[in-house]
Amino acid sequence: MAFNINEHQHVRYNPLKDEWVVVSPHRALRPWSGQVETAPTEEVPQFDPKNPLCPGVKRTSGEVTPMYESTYVFTNDFPALLEEGPEPEDSGDPLFQMKAAKGTCRVICYHPHSNVYFSNLSLKEVVCVVHEWINQYVELGKKYSWVQIFENRGAMMGCSNPHPHCQIWASSFLPNEPRIKDKNLREYFKKHKRPMLIDYVEKELLKKERVVYQNEEWVVVVPFWAVWPFETMVLPKRQVKRFNDLDCKQIEKLAQTLQVIVAKYDNIFKCNFPYSMGWHGAPTGEHLKENQDHWTFHGMYYPPLLRSATVKKFMVGYELLAQSQRDLSAEKAAAVIRDQPEKRFA
Amino acid sequence: MAFNINEHQHVRYNPLKDEWVVVSPHRALRPWSGQVETAPTEEVPQFDPKNPLCPGVKRTSGEVTPMYESTYVFTNDFPALLEEGPEPEDSGDPLFQMKAAKGTCRVICYHPHSNVYFSNLSLKEVVCVVHEWINQYVELGKKYSWVQIFENRGAMMGCSNPHPHCQIWASSFLPNEPRIKDKNLREYFKKHKRPMLIDYVEKELLKKERVVYQNEEWVVVVPFWAVWPFETMVLPKRQVKRFNDLDCKQIEKLAQTLQVIVAKYDNIFKCNFPYSMGWHGAPTGEHLKENQDHWTFHGMYYPPLLRSATVKKFMVGYELLAQSQRDLSAEKAAAVIRDQPEKRFA
Ligand SMILES: O=P(O)(O)O[C@H]1O[C@H](CO)[C@@H](O)[C@H](O)[C@H]1O
Ligand SMILES: O=P(O)(O)O[C@H]1O[C@H](CO)[C@@H](O)[C@H](O)[C@H]1O
Repeated sequence: MAFNINEHQHVRYNPLKDEWVVVSPHRALRPWSGQVETAPTEEVPQFDPKNPLCPGVKRTSGEVTPMYESTYVFTNDFPALLEEGPEPEDSGDPLFQMKAAKGTCRVICYHPHSNVYFSNLSLKEVVCVVHEWINQYVELGKKYSWVQIFENRGAMMGCSNPHPHCQIWASSFLPNEPRIKDKNLREYFKKHKRPMLIDYVEKELLKKERVVYQNEEWVVVVPFWAVWPFETMVLPKRQVKRFNDLDCKQIEKLAQTLQVIVAKYDNIFKCNFPYSMGWHGAPTGEHLKENQDHWTFHGMYYPPLLRSATVKKFMVGYELLAQSQRDLSAEKAAAVIRDQPEKRFA
Repeated sequence: MAFNINEHQHVRYNPLKDEWVVVSPHRALRPWSGQVETAPTEEVPQFDPKNPLCPGVKRTSGEVTPMYESTYVFTNDFPALLEEGPEPEDSGDPLFQMKAAKGTCRVICYHPHSNVYFSNLSLKEVVCVVHEWINQYVELGKKYSWVQIFENRGAMMGCSNPHPHCQIWASSFLPNEPRIKDKNLREYFKKHKRPMLIDYVEKELLKKERVVYQNEEWVVVVPFWAVWPFETMVLPKRQVKRFNDLDCKQIEKLAQTLQVIVAKYDNIFKCNFPYSMGWHGAPTGEHLKENQDHWTFHGMYYPPLLRSATVKKFMVGYELLAQSQRDLSAEKAAAVIRDQPEKRFA
């Protein structure tokens, strides 16, 4: 029997993480009798006088959210990272290492209305969101080594407020994920004299089977090494190292890309497709003065739904203790996303 | 202000993974208005004629589960890993690496009754479970490089059958987590001439603040670098490399340890505390003939609940894209678990 990527088990390598994923496409037939989630189809009113992210509403901190008209940024009332604080001492023991961590956590509201999202905002409004991401990245990047912009969409992904918003956690340290990525990107660059992700995007454009959308500036692919069922990566066609290196054309086309990818996701199971998403680029702070030619700015979407609006993939026992495992091949997932219309179901 | 480990933010190092975790104890005050889970307090009948893991019931495969009286092991009807199958070819491209994966997946029912668990099985019955784990480990370890024994407890952790059972996924490859652990244990051994986890357990026994339970042979600690709110590690007091290196005394005392830790967990929020748990020891298969003096056999519990039987910690945006983050310090979590009675609430 000949090997078929959509039918036969194998492992694939993630060169960004230096990790493998088990692909078990034959397992997709498995019936599911486990936990069923609430379908993320909830309708939200445009304004909710109890929602602290709405204009004019009082937050737990006592502050009142202003009557904002575009994006609105504020410091998280319960930040995981504070700008100042007492620092731990060095234990001198390799088994009990502790270090100081400084940082700040902000919230970006995308729009004053609660009932909007990328797929029904105007292109201009999405461009405003991208500009706000860039502003924040630049401002916080002056001081902090890493500025993580991310969004948890949907209650299933731990989001506790339905108003369209994302978060920024900026830190005095380079967190694990970008630290490992930096190492692997650097090694590839040393060996091949080219940024890994630019090589990758060019190859994916030729292969086509994992590309779900592209325009003049951006490509969305289900990465060859995807772990989450409908995971995607948003990659630029022209090399850029950081969010603030994007030119006007790239910004506008990124806004369009975001509208399309979210609409496609929502169309798969006719729901508000939950995910965590975020952006990675070259590190900032003290790293701004280092050579970062190995870095390519990119986005990642990690959506948990697998079979329907109510059945997700659980990353549990084997995944936590041994290795990530997926049922659907990356190529099948890409075909599903690619086939969705670019406008969201109404 | 002096640094207080239970109050002030910091990062801690996990020497097994070569990773850091952000600890934000000040964030524990955060109110929660996000997703609430179904409390895992469901009562299960002793026998359910529709449950394929009960003696005498037909499974989807058509096979009938025999009238077993102790443990019962069978090959998963929808295994993620198969023993045979066509193999992928080498692409020769570092960005598109695929390899063959072989393996097998088994299910171990702990007992014929559905309404029992470690805390209400007799010590002898738990000893039988441990013996079955060891038998399976030895049998599968002859052929496979890694034998991952794990249990997903509770629907919240992706478990789709309430009958007391665990799983074994044995593979022809060394999965990511044990591969990384092997590397770090080996480096420590080279440098310090002692198994890392034996050094670790001795130091934790002196420090006491993270120890939640101990008997003559075993210690349960919330590891210094814990990520999950009430994460624990089960460590031997005497060096053993693999599950099958345990002697009779260690086996009996391990059974007792399991009964106590599960009862303590269940007592925290008065529910069937969900978790993923599993065992790691020196690799098997072709690694059986290599020197593995750096390995110490141990168990891990990863429970998601944070604040109550219905509010869990979400490992999402920041955690997936940047670094694990916890609110409760490991020392506070240890105090909570330590203070629970060793018998489960009735
Ligand atoms: O095999 P089960 O129990 O149906 O499935 C569960 O455990 C597996 C191993 O951790 C995971 O891959 C699945 O996502 C989870 O639902
Ligand atoms: O800050 P939020 O949205 O309340 O919290 C959510 O995102 C955080 C960052 O990924 C996670 O640490 C929390 O577990 C999650 O519930």
